[in-house]
Amino acid sequence: MPTLLADTNLFLWVDLENPTPEETKAVLEDVFHFHPLSIEDCVMISPSPKVEEYSPREEDLFAPYLFMVIHAVDYSRKDGVFATRELNFFLGKNFLVTYHEAPLKSIQFTSERCVKSTVHIARAPDRVAHTLLDSIVENYKPALDELSLEIAELEHEALQNPGQKTLNKILQVKKEVVHLRQIIGPQREVLARFARGDFKLIRAHLVPYYRDVYDGLFHISELAQSYTDSLTGILQVYLNMSSNRTGEVIKLLTLFTIVTTPVMLIGTWYGMNFDSMPEVTWPYGYVVITVVAVLSTAATFWYFKRKKWF
Amino acid sequence: MPTLLADTNLFLWVDLENPTPEETKAVLEDVFHFHPLSIEDCVMISPSPKVEEYSPREEDLFAPYLFMVIHAVDYSRKDGVFATRELNFFLGKNFLVTYHEAPLKSIQFTSERCVKSTVHIARAPDRVAHTLLDSIVENYKPALDELSLEIAELEHEALQNPGQKTLNKILQVKKEVVHLRQIIGPQREVLARFARGDFKLIRAHLVPYYRDVYDGLFHISELAQSYTDSLTGILQVYLNMSSNRTGEVIKLLTLFTIVTTPVMLIGTWYGMNFDSMPEVTWPYGYVVITVVAVLSTAATFWYFKRKKWF
Amino acid sequence: MPTLLADTNLFLWVDLENPTPEETKAVLEDVFHFHPLSIEDCVMISPSPKVEEYSPREEDLFAPYLFMVIHAVDYSRKDGVFATRELNFFLGKNFLVTYHEAPLKSIQFTSERCVKSTVHIARAPDRVAHTLLDSIVENYKPALDELSLEIAELEHEALQNPGQKTLNKILQVKKEVVHLRQIIGPQREVLARFARGDFKLIRAHLVPYYRDVYDGLFHISELAQSYTDSLTGILQVYLNMSSNRTGEVIKLLTLFTIVTTPVMLIGTWYGMNFDSMPEVTWPYGYVVITVVAVLSTAATFWYFKRKKWF
Amino acid sequence: MPTLLADTNLFLWVDLENPTPEETKAVLEDVFHFHPLSIEDCVMISPSPKVEEYSPREEDLFAPYLFMVIHAVDYSRKDGVFATRELNFFLGKNFLVTYHEAPLKSIQFTSERCVKSTVHIARAPDRVAHTLLDSIVENYKPALDELSLEIAELEHEALQNPGQKTLNKILQVKKEVVHLRQIIGPQREVLARFARGDFKLIRAHLVPYYRDVYDGLFHISELAQSYTDSLTGILQVYLNMSSNRTGEVIKLLTLFTIVTTPVMLIGTWYGMNFDSMPEVTWPYGYVVITVVAVLSTAATFWYFKRKKWF
Amino acid sequence: MPTLLADTNLFLWVDLENPTPEETKAVLEDVFHFHPLSIEDCVMISPSPKVEEYSPREEDLFAPYLFMVIHAVDYSRKDGVFATRELNFFLGKNFLVTYHEAPLKSIQFTSERCVKSTVHIARAPDRVAHTLLDSIVENYKPALDELSLEIAELEHEALQNPGQKTLNKILQVKKEVVHLRQIIGPQREVLARFARGDFKLIRAHLVPYYRDVYDGLFHISELAQSYTDSLTGILQVYLNMSSNRTGEVIKLLTLFTIVTTPVMLIGTWYGMNFDSMPEVTWPYGYVVITVVAVLSTAATFWYFKRKKWF
Repeated sequence: MPTLLADTNLFLWVDLENPTPEETKAVLEDVFHFHPLSIEDCVMISPSPKVEEYSPREEDLFAPYLFMVIHAVDYSRKDGVFATRELNFFLGKNFLVTYHEAPLKSIQFTSERCVKSTVHIARAPDRVAHTLLDSIVENYKPALDELSLEIAELEHEALQNPGQKTLNKILQVKKEVVHLRQIIGPQREVLARFARGDFKLIRAHLVPYYRDVYDGLFHISELAQSYTDSLTGILQVYLNMSSNRTGEVIKLLTLFTIVTTPVMLIGTWYGMNFDSMPEVTWPYGYVVITVVAVLSTAATFWYFKRKKWF
Repeated sequence: MPTLLADTNLFLWVDLENPTPEETKAVLEDVFHFHPLSIEDCVMISPSPKVEEYSPREEDLFAPYLFMVIHAVDYSRKDGVFATRELNFFLGKNFLVTYHEAPLKSIQFTSERCVKSTVHIARAPDRVAHTLLDSIVENYKPALDELSLEIAELEHEALQNPGQKTLNKILQVKKEVVHLRQIIGPQREVLARFARGDFKLIRAHLVPYYRDVYDGLFHISELAQSYTDSLTGILQVYLNMSSNRTGEVIKLLTLFTIVTTPVMLIGTWYGMNFDSMPEVTWPYGYVVITVVAVLSTAATFWYFKRKKWF
Repeated sequence: MPTLLADTNLFLWVDLENPTPEETKAVLEDVFHFHPLSIEDCVMISPSPKVEEYSPREEDLFAPYLFMVIHAVDYSRKDGVFATRELNFFLGKNFLVTYHEAPLKSIQFTSERCVKSTVHIARAPDRVAHTLLDSIVENYKPALDELSLEIAELEHEALQNPGQKTLNKILQVKKEVVHLRQIIGPQREVLARFARGDFKLIRAHLVPYYRDVYDGLFHISELAQSYTDSLTGILQVYLNMSSNRTGEVIKLLTLFTIVTTPVMLIGTWYGMNFDSMPEVTWPYGYVVITVVAVLSTAATFWYFKRKKWF
Repeated sequence: MPTLLADTNLFLWVDLENPTPEETKAVLEDVFHFHPLSIEDCVMISPSPKVEEYSPREEDLFAPYLFMVIHAVDYSRKDGVFATRELNFFLGKNFLVTYHEAPLKSIQFTSERCVKSTVHIARAPDRVAHTLLDSIVENYKPALDELSLEIAELEHEALQNPGQKTLNKILQVKKEVVHLRQIIGPQREVLARFARGDFKLIRAHLVPYYRDVYDGLFHISELAQSYTDSLTGILQVYLNMSSNRTGEVIKLLTLFTIVTTPVMLIGTWYGMNFDSMPEVTWPYGYVVITVVAVLSTAATFWYFKRKKWF
Repeated sequence: MPTLLADTNLFLWVDLENPTPEETKAVLEDVFHFHPLSIEDCVMISPSPKVEEYSPREEDLFAPYLFMVIHAVDYSRKDGVFATRELNFFLGKNFLVTYHEAPLKSIQFTSERCVKSTVHIARAPDRVAHTLLDSIVENYKPALDELSLEIAELEHEALQNPGQKTLNKILQVKKEVVHLRQIIGPQREVLARFARGDFKLIRAHLVPYYRDVYDGLFHISELAQSYTDSLTGILQVYLNMSSNRTGEVIKLLTLFTIVTTPVMLIGTWYGMNFDSMPEVTWPYGYVVITVVAVLSTAATFWYFKRKKWF
C-alpha cells in the first residue's frame, strides 16, 4: 500500500470492515500515519457526526486529509427503533479510507459502481466520497417510508380504536422521530460545509453535487419535522377521543338514570303504605298508572332521541 | 434555435410543457448544453424550491445561467389538499427556458402578455421571469381565500355544532396550513436573493420589481401564520365546547337526581312495613305527604332555576 | 409646484388626502416624476410597512427620495377590531409628499405645529417626517389603553362569571393582540433603519430623535407581548374555572347521593315483606329506626361539613 | 459648578434627588449644556433601560458623555409587585450626574463609600458609575430571595391545600417573574455594551469590573428563568391536584353506589307484593337474607379495599 | 515557588484544596500577583462557568494568564439533586494554579497520571488543563447514567402504578435536568472558545484535543435535551393514565347502575300496593318475573361484555 500511495496518479480506496485492532493499527497508523486523535475518534463510537480537516505540521508524516464521521440509519418496524451505523471517512488527495463495523449497503453499492464504471466515479476520492454520501442519504428514504406508514396506521388507530397502547405507540414513534432529527441535525451541518465548498480537498466543480446531497438531507429533515407535527395532531385526536369516550359513558349513565326515573318515582310512590290512597283502590288505578309510566318513559326517550343523544 | 441563440440581440423563450425525454434532451442538452446536474434537478420532482447560479468552466459549453425551481399552488376545497406544481427556470442573458409537466396558468398569462405588449415585457428574459414569478405569487391568493373561507366555516362549526369530525377537519386544515408554510418558506428565501440583487443576470433597475414580488410572498406567509393562530384558537374552542358539553350532561344528571330525591325519600320511607307508623293511619296523612313531596320538589326546582342551571 | 420645487432653499410639503386618480397622477407623476413602482405601492393598499430608497438612474427625472409606508392604528372597543390606516411618505431633500385616504390625526397635528412654530420643525422635511412618525406612534397609546382595559375586564369576568362567551372574547382579544404585533413588527424594522442612521436623507443630528421614536415603538411591542401573556393566563383561569365548576357539580351529586343513602337503605330494607321481621312488630321499632335514620344522615352531613364540601 | 467643571483634574458628582424643574434646568441645561433629547429622556419616565453616547457637534457646548437609564427594583411580598425605580446617569470624562426621583439605597451606599475611601473609588466617574451599577445589581438579590420564598410557599400550597386562590397566586407571581425578565433583558443589553468595552469614556482596565456586574445580572436572569420553570411545574401540580380531587369524588360516589347496591337490590326485590314468594314465608327467610346482604356488602367493601380505593 | 516560577523551562502546578485565606493570599497574591478581580472570583462561589484572559498592563506584576471557572457535577439518586463543585484555573505559560474547596476526583486522577507519565502530559500546563477538563467532562457520565436509570423507572411507574408521588418525582427530575442544562450551557460556551483556538496560551496543535472535550460536552447536552423530551412524554402518559382511571371509575359506576336497573325497576314496580295488579296474584307471577329479571340483567351484562367494558 505505501507504494501505491506514493504514486500520486493512482487513487487508493481502503475499506476496513470490522477490522481487528492490529489491522486498524497497520493501516491507519503505519501506512497512512493519521493523527492519533482522528484514529481514536474513528475506532470509538462517536455519538454525533462531524468533519475535521487535518493539515500536517512539519513533524507529521500524514498528507492533509478530511476526517468525517457520518451515520447511516436503519429502521425496522418490528422493534420500532432507529439503528444508526457509523461510517468513518479519511479523505485525502489520492486516497479514501472507510472504516465501519457492520457491513453497509452504501459501501457495497458504491464499490459495485466503481467496478462497473471506472471512468466517471472511480478516478477521484472526492467523487467516490460523494457517491457514498449520496447513497447513505438515499438509504434514509426506506426508513422514512416505514415511519410514514406507521404514522398513518397510528392515525387510523387513534380514530378507530384508541387504547392505552396507542398512547405508548404515539410517544414511542415521537421519540424515534426526535431521535432521527437529532441524527440528521449535525449531519446537515457537516454536509452544509461541503455544500459551501469549505474544503480544498473537494474540487470546486464537484461542489454542486455535494449541494445536491445536502438538499436531499434538507428535505428529509423537513419530512421529519412534518412527522412531528402529524404525531402532535394524532396525540390530540387520541386525547380527545379518550375524553369523548368518558363523555359518552357519562351520557349513557345520565340517559339511563333519567329514562328510568318515571317508573322509579311511580313505583316508589305507590309502594307507600298509607291507608287512604284513593288511586290504589280505584279499579283502573293500575292500568292508568301503567299507561302514565309507559308514556312518560317514552317521552324522555323521544326527547333524548331528538337531542341526538343516541 | 441555435441560430436564434447565437444572435445576442434576440431573446428566446422556450417553454417545455410535459415534454418527452427526447425533446428534453434535444433542448436542454443539445441546444443549451446545460450542466447535467441542473437538467437532472429539472426533470426530477424537487421537493423544495431553490435557485442556483451556474457559471461555465472553460470546458463547458453553456452560457452563464440561473437555474430555479419554484412551486405554484392549487387548493381545492373538495379534497382539501394543496397541490403544488413545479416550474423550472433556466434564465440566461438572452434566453429563458421554462419546464413544467402540467399546464400552468402563469405561463399562459405571461405568454399572452408577451404577445400583446412586446415593448415592455418581452424584450428581456429577466422581465419575463419577473412577470412569471409575479403571476405565480398572485395565483396563491385564490388558494388562500379558499383556506380563509374554510377556517371561517370551521370556527362557526366549532361553536355551533362541534363533533368528532370537526376535530378531524381542524387538524386536516392545520396540516395544510403547515404544508403551505413549508412551501412558502424556501420560496421566500429564493426570492429574497433576487430582492437583494444577488444575481448579475437580473439588471439592477429590475431589482425593486423582484422586491415587490418578495413583499407579496412575505404577506402571504404572514397570512399563513395568522391562519395557524386562528386554527389554534378554534381548536381551543372545540375542546372547550366538548368538555363543556360533558359538564352540561353531568349537570343534568345531578339535577335529575336531586329533584327526584324528595319523592324517592318519602316514597321509600312510607313504603316501610312497620306496624306502628302513625302517619300512615292518619286520615290526611297521604294528602299532607303529597303536598310535602310537591313543595320540596318545587323548592329544589326553584333553587336550581335561580342558580341558572337550566 | 415645479417652481417651488426647483428652489432648493424652500421646502415643500404636499399632503394628498383621498385624492382623485387625476390629482395623484398630476402630483406624483408629473410634478415629482417618482418611480412608477413606488407610485403603485402608494396607491394600492400595502399590507405591511416598508421603507425603500430610490436613487435616480441617468434617465430618471426624480430626485433621490425615500418611499415609506407606515400604519396608524385605531381601536374601538365596540367592534373590538384594530383598524389600520395607511400613510405613505415620499421624503426628499427639500420635499415631503404624504398620501393617505382617510383623514389622519397625526397629519392634522403636525400641520398645525408647522404653522405655529416655523422655526424648529417646518424648515426641513426630515424634521416634519419625525414629527409625523412620533405622533403616529403616540397615537398607538390610546388604542393600547383600550385594550388594557378590556383585558382587565376579561380577567374579572373569567374569575367571577365565566361563560362560553368569555372564551370567545378572550380568543377575540388575543387575535387582536396578535394582529397588533403583526402591525408593529415590520414597523419596528422600518424605524430601526432610521434609528441606525441608514439613510443619508436624514441628517445625522436628527438620528437620536428617530431613535426615540423607535424606543417608543419598542416599548409598545413589549406591552403587546405582556398582553399576550396576560391573555394566556386568563385563558388558563377560565379553563380551570370551567373544570372546577364541573367538579363542584359532581361533588353536589355525590353529596346528595351519600346523604340520602341511610334513609334509602333503611326505607328499602324495611319495605321488605318477610313474614317474620321482628323489628317491624316491635312497638318502638319505627321510632328507633327513625332516630337511626336521622342520626346517620346527620353524621354524613357533619362529616362532609368538616371536610369542607359545602 | 462651572468652575469646578472647567478644572479637568477634578471630578464632579452631582446627584439630583427629586429636583424641581428649575433645579433640573439649572444643572442639566445651564451648567452641563446636555443634549435636549437626553434631558427629556431623563426627566420623563422611561419604560426601558438604555445607554446612548452623545458626541458634541461643533455648535454644541457639552463635552462628550454617556447617557444611561437603569432601573433598580424593589419587591415587597405584601402587594406582590415589582416596583422599579429609574436612575439616570450622565457620565462624562470628569463628571457624573445622577438623576432620580425617589431616594435610592445604591446612591446612598455609593456616596458613603466615596466619602470613606477617596483613593480607590472617588477619583474617577467611571469607577463611581461601576460602584453604583454594582450596588443596583446587588440590590436585586433581596427581591429575588423574596420571590424564591414565595414560590416555595406556592409549591407547598399547590400540593397540600390547593384552591382557586392558589391558581390566582401562581399566575400573579408568574406575571411578576415575566415582568422581572422584561426589566432585566434590556438592562443586560446595556451592561453587555459596557462589558464589551464599547465606550471610550470607560477606561480599558475597568472593563473587567463592568463584566463582573454583567455576570451578576446574567446570573439573575438565569434565576428568573428557573423561577418561570418552577412556576410552570407548580401550575401542572395544581391542575393535576384539582383534577385528581374530582377523580376522588367520583370514586367516592361510585364506591357508595356499589357498596349499597346489594342491600338496595335485596330490599327492593323482597318489597314486591307477589302472593306466592316462597322465601318470604320461610321462617328463616329474613335471617338468611340479612346474612346474604351483610356478606355481599362486606365482599364489595373488601374488594375495593384490596383495590386500594380507600 | 517564586524561584521555580522564574525558571521558564519548568512548569509549576499548584493545587489549592480548601485553603485558608492566608494560604490563598500567599499563593495567589504574593507569588503570582494575579489580578484582584480574578482572585475575588476564584474565592467566591461563582454561579456560572466562565473564562477570561488577563493581559498585564505595564504596572501589573503578573504574567498573562487565563482565569477559568468550571463545574464538576455529582448526582446521587438518594437526594435526587445535582451537586456542582467549582474548580478554578489560573493557566499561564509555565504555571497552572487550581483552586477548589472539596476534593475532586478529576484533580486526583490527573495528578496521578502526571506522576506516572511525565513525558506526555506533565510538560505543559495546557496539556494538564486538557486532561483535567477531559476528566471533568468524563465524570458527568455516571451522573447522566443515574439520571437515565431514574427516568426509565419513572416511565415504568407512570404506566404501571401512577400516583400523586409520581407527578412530583417527574417534576423533580425535570427540574434537575433543566438545572443540568443550565450548568452545561455556559460550560459549552467556555469550551467552544478553546475549541475555536481563541487563546494564545493554548498551543495550536492542542486545539483538536480541546475540540474533542467540547464534542463530549455537546453530546452530553444533547442527551440532556433527550431526557427533557422523555420526561415530557412520561408526564403525558401520567396525566393520561390519571384521566383514564377516572374514566374507568365512571365506566364502573355506569355499568353498575345499568346492570342493576332491571331488578330495581321490576322490584319497585311490583312493590306498588294497587289492589288490582293481576300479575301479583297469578300463581306463576313471581317465577316469571324472576326469570325476566335474571334474563334482562344477563342481557345488559352480555351487551357490555361484548362492548368490552370489562
